Amino acid sequence: MSVTAAQGFEAAGVAAGLKSTGKPDLAVVVNRGPHKAGAAVFTSNRAKANPILWSQQAIADGIVEAVVLNSGGANCFTGAFGFQTTHQTAERAGELLGVSPGDVIVCSTGLIGTGDETFRARVLGGTEAAIAALSVDGGEDASLAIMTTDSKPKRAVVTRDGWTVGGMAKGAGMLAPGLATMLVVITTDAVLTAAELDTALRTATALTFDRLDSDGCMSTNDQVTLLASGASGIHPDFDAFGLALTEVCQDLAQQLQADAEGASHDITIQVVHAATVADAVEVGRSVARNNLFKAAIFGNDPNWGRVLAAIGTTQAEFDPYAVDVSFNGVRLCSDGAPDRPRDEVDLTPRATAVLIDLKAGDAEATILTNDLTHDYVHENSAYSS
Amino acid sequence: MSVTAAQGFEAAGVAAGLKSTGKPDLAVVVNRGPHKAGAAVFTSNRAKANPILWSQQAIADGIVEAVVLNSGGANCFTGAFGFQTTHQTAERAGELLGVSPGDVIVCSTGLIGTGDETFRARVLGGTEAAIAALSVDGGEDASLAIMTTDSKPKRAVVTRDGWTVGGMAKGAGMLAPGLATMLVVITTDAVLTAAELDTALRTATALTFDRLDSDGCMSTNDQVTLLASGASGIHPDFDAFGLALTEVCQDLAQQLQADAEGASHDITIQVVHAATVADAVEVGRSVARNNLFKAAIFGNDPNWGRVLAAIGTTQAEFDPYAVDVSFNGVRLCSDGAPDRPRDEVDLTPRATAVLIDLKAGDAEATILTNDLTHDYVHENSAYSS
Repeated sequence: MSVTAAQGFEAAGVAAGLKSTGKPDLAVVVNRGPHKAGAAVFTSNRAKANPILWSQQAIADGIVEAVVLNSGGANCFTGAFGFQTTHQTAERAGELLGVSPGDVIVCSTGLIGTGDETFRARVLGGTEAAIAALSVDGGEDASLAIMTTDSKPKRAVVTRDGWTVGGMAKGAGMLAPGLATMLVVITTDAVLTAAELDTALRTATALTFDRLDSDGCMSTNDQVTLLASGASGIHPDFDAFGLALTEVCQDLAQQLQADAEGASHDITIQVVHAATVADAVEVGRSVARNNLFKAAIFGNDPNWGRVLAAIGTTQAEFDPYAVDVSFNGVRLCSDGAPDRPRDEVDLTPRATAVLIDLKAGDAEATILTNDLTHDYVHENSAYSS
Repeated sequence: MSVTAAQGFEAAGVAAGLKSTGKPDLAVVVNRGPHKAGAAVFTSNRAKANPILWSQQAIADGIVEAVVLNSGGANCFTGAFGFQTTHQTAERAGELLGVSPGDVIVCSTGLIGTGDETFRARVLGGTEAAIAALSVDGGEDASLAIMTTDSKPKRAVVTRDGWTVGGMAKGAGMLAPGLATMLVVITTDAVLTAAELDTALRTATALTFDRLDSDGCMSTNDQVTLLASGASGIHPDFDAFGLALTEVCQDLAQQLQADAEGASHDITIQVVHAATVADAVEVGRSVARNNLFKAAIFGNDPNWGRVLAAIGTTQAEFDPYAVDVSFNGVRLCSDGAPDRPRDEVDLTPRATAVLIDLKAGDAEATILTNDLTHDYVHENSAYSS
């Protein structure tokens, strides 16, 4: 059900001709109210696609009526013409829905540089078709229409006492902090103000999507949008809502990790006894982004030396010669020297756990990543062809 | 001739049994004087191998009598026993050469965590054998003995009016700033003080080895050592010496790039019209480290969008929507929008030129890197097995 699990939302997904395969490529999610509160977080990349530039303005007043999302073209680095396409998309949706264009969020994903007149015509046509097809059961269709190289749609729903949080996500590579190459829409029928949504969303994404770092590459189009209809009539405890939202985000983040392009291992890097959470995140991320480490995991090689070589490049507070490193529960390195033999570690399962004990404090963080495989190279060398 | 091209040096390379293949794996370079001036730069990784910890102390007085280098084991994260191995290596060499152990530099390369009793015995035995084999023609043998996954030895010689600079290098991956996974020894028979060598070496490496970023991974063992014998009796103009040294370093850096593990393209990323050199380096490096860009080049895909997505993550001063990007002389992106068609670019040659015009000032820098290939993944997943 994804974005239509919560009351007060309708959605649709249609084929607008943007994908050469003819598969669905345009989705619309509409908030029928009674409230129209919204919040969003965006890529921190300075190279931002036109839909990001538009949506950053549209979200400013905390009111979101609808979200239009397309796959099959990023509309990024397409100049003034591309921005006008995004603007016209919001205008067309606003006109058909009887709402202000300034309350319509637009998201795009696909190849950078794609955004010509054909693209514009198909996006506008698809927006009309999707709005005509809106339904309270449209969440699944919408989640299919936002897929690019995803092998499966990503959906998550959490229901509490009388209110629901549900969401959909797309993304299968270029997953890095400051958000992944991903588009996410999350809806709730709880009663919450835009300010509450903003706080809850920033907290939840910092703990979930921002700790997913598949390949260290940050997209130009990433966006997570949260909409609240208030249709349940229930104003939940704020902490309870935050937990439910984080649960949905974490579920979607793990689905993104599991579907990362070409990956053969889902790697959980847990950094413990750090001086600060920021240190733990920096250390975990340095390992997640180390190609030599990632290639070793692909080869089922528990190469702890590459973990230490990676974390030695950080500014985090710890003594490199006091660190312990474990792979799948076997401590291979204690106090910066060899401990158990490598052959005690079995890295054949897809799920891989790396534990790094910095012995520098009480903070910890977990980073999710993937291995570097032949298939990753293949998929990303053939992407635009 | 490499390290024995300059007068006053002897070298040797022998098989000490550290490599399972039986190939040469231990080299010694000795300065016969009359001067014994030396300088060195080391990895900036905080995770430093035992030979680095030793050599940082040994270089402090600016006197270097000899360098002992081994492949087949990094002696990194091998605890106090590993440091004693390095210390004993310097003691043994000092004893046999009749010099202070504190003036013997030690370098190791190979798998992290390798440094047990067998390793120690073979390094000490190899040191004896190499010293017994020292010769003024030993430069080639020495350059062979430091190879790991290198497909060929790297040597460079520049001769000026009466004086010479020559060097050898090893390295074929983990090439990143703060030095690559590389060991380099450079010798000269010019008359120079240790302070002059230090200044010249830091300047030359900053412009050459530090701008080679094959895979963004920084080693624990990198070291570049420069020795001056004064045997020519000529004290060259300092700037002339700096140019000759930079020429040798650049030649070796390009040989390292050309031999990077599994690479099919040597990529030159030239960043022009930057506000500062530091900005140009940061921008170039962000592209050099972007796996999506590197995989695209492997696929002969001039994906300029990935260049912009990479540089958007930097803090450098420029307007992302004003940037031009060219591949092999064809401008694909002007002012942040599409320009010439992609199919005008031929990426089949190994040499690939990416030009990024930031339009933000007068500074520039060039970063050397490689593409991300199936062979890179293969070689680095099978490294320790």
